[in-house]
Amino acid sequence: MTLVSEHVLARFALAPGFSSSAVACGLKKSGALDLVMVWSEQPSIAAGLFTTNRVQAAPVIVDRAHLAASQGRIRGVIANSGCANAVTGERGLADARYMTALAAATLDATREEVLVPSTGVIGVYLDMDKVARGISTLPSPLADTTAGGAAIAITTTDTVPKVASREVRLGAGGATVAGFAKGAGMIHPRMATMLAIVTTDAVVERARLDRVLRAAVEVSFNRISVDGDMSTNDTVLVLASGASGLVVNDTNEAAFTEALSDVCAALARQIARDGEGATRLVELRVTGAATEAQAHRVGDAIACSPLVKTAVHGNDPNWGRVLAAAGYSGEAIEPDRVRLWFGERDALQLLDRGLPLPFDRRQASALLAEDPAILHLDLGLGDASAVLWTCDLSAEYVRVNAEYTT
Amino acid sequence: MTLVSEHVLARFALAPGFSSSAVACGLKKSGALDLVMVWSEQPSIAAGLFTTNRVQAAPVIVDRAHLAASQGRIRGVIANSGCANAVTGERGLADARYMTALAAATLDATREEVLVPSTGVIGVYLDMDKVARGISTLPSPLADTTAGGAAIAITTTDTVPKVASREVRLGAGGATVAGFAKGAGMIHPRMATMLAIVTTDAVVERARLDRVLRAAVEVSFNRISVDGDMSTNDTVLVLASGASGLVVNDTNEAAFTEALSDVCAALARQIARDGEGATRLVELRVTGAATEAQAHRVGDAIACSPLVKTAVHGNDPNWGRVLAAAGYSGEAIEPDRVRLWFGERDALQLLDRGLPLPFDRRQASALLAEDPAILHLDLGLGDASAVLWTCDLSAEYVRVNAEYTT
Repeated sequence: MTLVSEHVLARFALAPGFSSSAVACGLKKSGALDLVMVWSEQPSIAAGLFTTNRVQAAPVIVDRAHLAASQGRIRGVIANSGCANAVTGERGLADARYMTALAAATLDATREEVLVPSTGVIGVYLDMDKVARGISTLPSPLADTTAGGAAIAITTTDTVPKVASREVRLGAGGATVAGFAKGAGMIHPRMATMLAIVTTDAVVERARLDRVLRAAVEVSFNRISVDGDMSTNDTVLVLASGASGLVVNDTNEAAFTEALSDVCAALARQIARDGEGATRLVELRVTGAATEAQAHRVGDAIACSPLVKTAVHGNDPNWGRVLAAAGYSGEAIEPDRVRLWFGERDALQLLDRGLPLPFDRRQASALLAEDPAILHLDLGLGDASAVLWTCDLSAEYVRVNAEYTT
Repeated sequence: MTLVSEHVLARFALAPGFSSSAVACGLKKSGALDLVMVWSEQPSIAAGLFTTNRVQAAPVIVDRAHLAASQGRIRGVIANSGCANAVTGERGLADARYMTALAAATLDATREEVLVPSTGVIGVYLDMDKVARGISTLPSPLADTTAGGAAIAITTTDTVPKVASREVRLGAGGATVAGFAKGAGMIHPRMATMLAIVTTDAVVERARLDRVLRAAVEVSFNRISVDGDMSTNDTVLVLASGASGLVVNDTNEAAFTEALSDVCAALARQIARDGEGATRLVELRVTGAATEAQAHRVGDAIACSPLVKTAVHGNDPNWGRVLAAAGYSGEAIEPDRVRLWFGERDALQLLDRGLPLPFDRRQASALLAEDPAILHLDLGLGDASAVLWTCDLSAEYVRVNAEYTT
């Protein structure tokens, strides 16, 4: 994994062929940036993955329809924070469609060539006056080639914006994969999570882009959890401008998938690390599973356990909670085959084939205090594995969420 | 629901035919009561339900074996807090069996006629010297007919002991159902949860007692959640002494089931109300479901949502979180049929067939501040319903669990 940058916002740019602008249109009472447009100079090929929550926000419904109607040819994305436009009925759908129409007018595109992810409070209608005014005042798209403002504008309870980019060798040339994401709460890895927009200048046909996105999301956004709550607005979009002229084909698809997975995983880790109230990233390595799906489900149960997450927060080596969570994961683990370690390179073993080992509590606490805190559970059943990311659970999580709308 | 007592510990007694004693044997460092024996004067008929966690504590394995070997004829229960005797391998099993042998010696019973629930930290061996000394010093069983000490002795992070009892009319006479329980964390309604011991002086054959217990647990202990973490030690036991001479038969089985369900539900609510860090009980009423199982699963998702639980804690009427949780429950809800109310007797409606209603935020906050806070979700799909109980999620939950073993 060589990421060009996980945190350097100032220099962050989308892939060639894309530009962006962000404004504060007033949806956030704080006056912070809350509306962002991503322009594609030429029509891009786009793919998207969305929440599987039965309650789907209006923008999710509209985005699916637009990707189908345009056959994946997309000219722009108009995204807002401060209002999720979810549980808003027909009026919400009309508002989301109107947003795409307003954006399309500035792009000289059709409505169906525009996507519209939204994030924020559920059950509140968009203030369309503010949105319309905001779109009309978006600065000229090519004024600034950096996208730091876009990454900031889609955040809600995030404490930092999330960006990632890397190069990928395609034949003789190098193409870019660059994206940004938001998310700090209502994060659960059952499906493409939160909002993420990833761009590339590679040439990718639609079916291939769909396939690659699914593979990348499976090992990135589907491997994180903050609180086990799946959002109504989860959206991951990837747009390929083709500006590099470099074609993704059967030969280099694996390399491109790896690059996209790297960027998605870097964004996913940034989301987990910035989980509401979190003080550190927790990396769960589940090995020795019969299947990758089993490793994922066992890791998911651990990642969602408030008892595991509070123990990490308190540097408390109460490792029995990790075993208890694995035991109720629904997977047929064999407790007397399980081994557990804390720390990088399995620094400290706590459990050997179901039996507790004597251990130095001070060392165990110190390993849990690391960022990331690393927990490695080997099931002793096979050769499959999965890595998942979550965060510790702090009193600050409660404070943030007891006061979100009020 | 007419419960004789939910909180009056001093006068709490087990059903006729049973007595109990409790001592502090030193498993709890604090010196608090941690070992309890329940005696049955004559052999009782017993039934038990246990955790479905794949990681099963030694006492759970031994209890299952003893119920099978004794064909449900039980003379006593020796229970401890301060150590779960879970993830302790063969040594843990030997320790649990030895505990039953020590208790059997004082009861003039066989080892298989004794059950042994344990609760406390996972992955630590029992200090058998302390346990043996404790059993040898248990006061004479009939010295005290109240069972308040027993209810106290099985607690861990509980802030209050949990007891409940009621009378049930069987033919011409009245029998008693009385029990106690513990649990504050690692509580999740996928199975018989935590420790609970319920006694009755009714005459109940074994197969009938099994059936009645399953029915009662389904609408009580399986309907609560504190943190979504399922324990390795969950145990619910019911012992029927027959001391009343009143027989449970096909005619009055429904009345007896209702009485046992009432007692179990009262204990379950006390557990949810005393959830770690909780400041109030949350009652979730899910109606209009296609099946009771659907209502249960939708309620379960809401009960486990940290975002819903923190919103209640902050008196924050952010009801979109309730909808989001229902939406990811795995059930095929139809968002545009859903209605939502807060408060007793549906005091305030927030959502009507998928559309947000204008509401008084101050009134909504006040309703969430009530104890219990009542949320009523109608799915608009059928006539089935379920009531579930959880608690709010506070910063104190984090504090308690970040510091449990250290």
